[in-house]
Amino acid sequence: MSSENKTIFDIDKEKDFPDWFGEICKVADLADIRYGVKGFTPFPPWSLMSMNLMFNVLEEVLQRKGHLPMLFPTVIPESNLTKEAQHVEGFTPQVFWIENIGDGEKLEEKLALRPTSETAIYPMYSLWVRSWRDLPLKRYQRCSVFRSEIKSTRPFLRGREFLWIESHNVFATHEEAKAQVMEDLETTKEAVTDSFCLPVMVFRRTQWDKFPGGLNTYAADTLMPDGKVIQLPSTHDLGDNFAKAFDVKYLNEGNEATYAFQTCYGPAVSRIYGAMISVHGDNKGLRLPFGIAPYQVVIIPIFKGQDAETVTKYCKDIEQKLKKAGFRTHLDVSDATPGWKYNFWEMKGVPIRLEAGMRDIKQEKVVLFRRDTMKRTSLELKNLKKQVAAIGKEIDASLLKMAESRFEGLIVDADTLSAVTDALEKGKVARIPFCTTEMEGLPCAEEVKDRTGGEIRGTRIDIDEKPEGVCTVCGKVAEAVVYVARSY
Amino acid sequence: MSSENKTIFDIDKEKDFPDWFGEICKVADLADIRYGVKGFTPFPPWSLMSMNLMFNVLEEVLQRKGHLPMLFPTVIPESNLTKEAQHVEGFTPQVFWIENIGDGEKLEEKLALRPTSETAIYPMYSLWVRSWRDLPLKRYQRCSVFRSEIKSTRPFLRGREFLWIESHNVFATHEEAKAQVMEDLETTKEAVTDSFCLPVMVFRRTQWDKFPGGLNTYAADTLMPDGKVIQLPSTHDLGDNFAKAFDVKYLNEGNEATYAFQTCYGPAVSRIYGAMISVHGDNKGLRLPFGIAPYQVVIIPIFKGQDAETVTKYCKDIEQKLKKAGFRTHLDVSDATPGWKYNFWEMKGVPIRLEAGMRDIKQEKVVLFRRDTMKRTSLELKNLKKQVAAIGKEIDASLLKMAESRFEGLIVDADTLSAVTDALEKGKVARIPFCTTEMEGLPCAEEVKDRTGGEIRGTRIDIDEKPEGVCTVCGKVAEAVVYVARSY
Repeated sequence: MSSENKTIFDIDKEKDFPDWFGEICKVADLADIRYGVKGFTPFPPWSLMSMNLMFNVLEEVLQRKGHLPMLFPTVIPESNLTKEAQHVEGFTPQVFWIENIGDGEKLEEKLALRPTSETAIYPMYSLWVRSWRDLPLKRYQRCSVFRSEIKSTRPFLRGREFLWIESHNVFATHEEAKAQVMEDLETTKEAVTDSFCLPVMVFRRTQWDKFPGGLNTYAADTLMPDGKVIQLPSTHDLGDNFAKAFDVKYLNEGNEATYAFQTCYGPAVSRIYGAMISVHGDNKGLRLPFGIAPYQVVIIPIFKGQDAETVTKYCKDIEQKLKKAGFRTHLDVSDATPGWKYNFWEMKGVPIRLEAGMRDIKQEKVVLFRRDTMKRTSLELKNLKKQVAAIGKEIDASLLKMAESRFEGLIVDADTLSAVTDALEKGKVARIPFCTTEMEGLPCAEEVKDRTGGEIRGTRIDIDEKPEGVCTVCGKVAEAVVYVARSY
Repeated sequence: MSSENKTIFDIDKEKDFPDWFGEICKVADLADIRYGVKGFTPFPPWSLMSMNLMFNVLEEVLQRKGHLPMLFPTVIPESNLTKEAQHVEGFTPQVFWIENIGDGEKLEEKLALRPTSETAIYPMYSLWVRSWRDLPLKRYQRCSVFRSEIKSTRPFLRGREFLWIESHNVFATHEEAKAQVMEDLETTKEAVTDSFCLPVMVFRRTQWDKFPGGLNTYAADTLMPDGKVIQLPSTHDLGDNFAKAFDVKYLNEGNEATYAFQTCYGPAVSRIYGAMISVHGDNKGLRLPFGIAPYQVVIIPIFKGQDAETVTKYCKDIEQKLKKAGFRTHLDVSDATPGWKYNFWEMKGVPIRLEAGMRDIKQEKVVLFRRDTMKRTSLELKNLKKQVAAIGKEIDASLLKMAESRFEGLIVDADTLSAVTDALEKGKVARIPFCTTEMEGLPCAEEVKDRTGGEIRGTRIDIDEKPEGVCTVCGKVAEAVVYVARSY
């Protein structure tokens, strides 16, 4: 974690979010866009360490709910990829193909870099699932996936290689599959909201916006600083569509071969990381939640020449004490000035900074600075471990609260498209009565998109909303209340 | 972890190792070779969970020694790959190439799936390393790599996609780089020997067998049940060769631009897993070290009809107690018979099995079975946690000891090639005086290979050996003592 040539970070995040995002990726060493291949970015330690902690959170929740980890190959034979018609149509334009090895030896069959792994995994599930005793089968893998984005790419938010978990489950009945979808939404809440401090709205997507080949897609959206929404984890009720395409059958208790029901769930950790730093950051740089900061506490010794040894020893003791208590702690003994170090670690988003000098030593105290509130307090050394744990929790609660406050007054009811446009231009999300989220509604959705620049995110499933009146676009009786937002 | 249709495993590992290996991969659900692409195998939970634990061990050691994690893209542009001449010659024949996207859109530049990441990482190191203050730079990544093996493939031991850690380090001086190589060999010992219970011999490879583009390669070999040796982690002193090819320079304290020295280290976790199950397994199946078994303890309730509830509750209490103490514990409540469960979990290699029935409950005891010795003892329930921890350690020590015993009398001194052949045919490793491990020795090495089927593994660096007499092949004065073995 080189700390050279860094200056004070000061960019107005609300005013110029793209600039803020690009600069923080560079200055905080989060992603290096100079790799030379569009959409592929190396992740240096500061971002990867947080993403690893995020993976740990998700894996802990998934394992607690009965999922086991597995790992499938990165490549998928072309013949697998083409087995489910809608799925292949949805993903093929984005696929990277391998056709040759070495100095030009041609492969017998083209291989795709996985854009998602249904077509890799389900042919094996067809062999692994034999009887009702094998069900439910709940598995996940943690891996990279590859999609050639046509739009311009941005680190974390839209890359051509991104990091995710994909969970693939098989059930005897559709009811169990639908219950799994609800469990996945709860998992999203536990990870994304409780640990990464991001509030979400949960939608059932429209039929034209669902996972290709599935029955229904449910997804959590959060709000970015530029007023656009971004999709965080999505979970898919696949019905028995894929089971039929890939022959995933089980013998039921009556010994009859029966198609299974499937779900898949895909929290894209690199994308969630991008959203998380965007939502929590401020004009001075990152503000990382306590639970997923690579360093939770940074310690800065303050001294003049002759006190160096005494102060450094005091700080080292604090470091050892906190490390032993399980806190990720870093003592900054570089030769920069304290003021420079303050700015640097504030920019890096470390939640808690401790400062100690001769005066603190005499009082057996230490100064604690909170990155979220930018406030200092003086603490008794003997209470430190307890205080760090408690303040860590407070910081996470405070980041979530600040993020939630941006949701207040966010949703505006509209009954004309010009009211929708007005709302979107003010960075709001419009709620409208709409004819239908079935395929017949697509022309109305396209008109919304053309006239307002907003996309229909679907119907809320975390709150109960009954449609009244007529569709804002076509005037037919409204069957749904939908949300319109600009989006990533 | 489906437990259907499994029969008692009984294959003579020493007599028919290839059959043993193929069958255990299938029966214990370690790898599924039916994926349909040569050399690419899905890893089900039972192998992946152990490999994840192995990754954790290696990452803990690397981080403790000052390495930080990072992650580079899976793809490398062709122009990077061709920058170091020997390196490109060594790896290009094995590279998978991506040239097209979607329905035939051609990429501006061909992309390689990384066969190893020097050529991805070092162009960025050229940008990241500016001054002596940035050094040493110690980083690693955990990822898949891709090499199109020409020889026949086998799960874990030789795949075309395998799992590894690669550590890439930059130093101001060659001395520091060489010290890093020694640190890496120590890391190998901590992980491979202390945690995975595999004894190793450590060699400096010959100049014709080193990492392409490096100065020297050091590697640890272990012995497989068929008498062949297999390379486990290797570490490379790259000198400043790659620094010159990729322009990795730093300003020294006198402000002069200076080429840096580099090392890389590549423990291939999937391959080490393959070696580990081969070495420790027996005719009844796997025997996993306690530290890396997905389940360290399996509990089998023993009851007749009316006692079901009492016994199951007793076992559940034990399960909770052990889980709370941090042991990976599984209570098998499936409706198979106890005898069937015994065989199944023995085949899976779970180190400790607990059995409890009405008699044990009355005595507040439990029966403990050790997979390594196949012996049962009865324990007081109140001592269980302590005993499980202690016996876990004993099991690891006993597996290592059994593996080490196969090294006794393994090395045979030879002074003719027919004596080498004799030794190899008896499953031994031959030690011979040899002209030189510099490139001039290659013709002699080729003659050894042709006439004995053995490969020269290099000179030992973990013990001090001085050559005496003349080269076994050409009769020139011997400059080295080398080891000849059949190998993977």
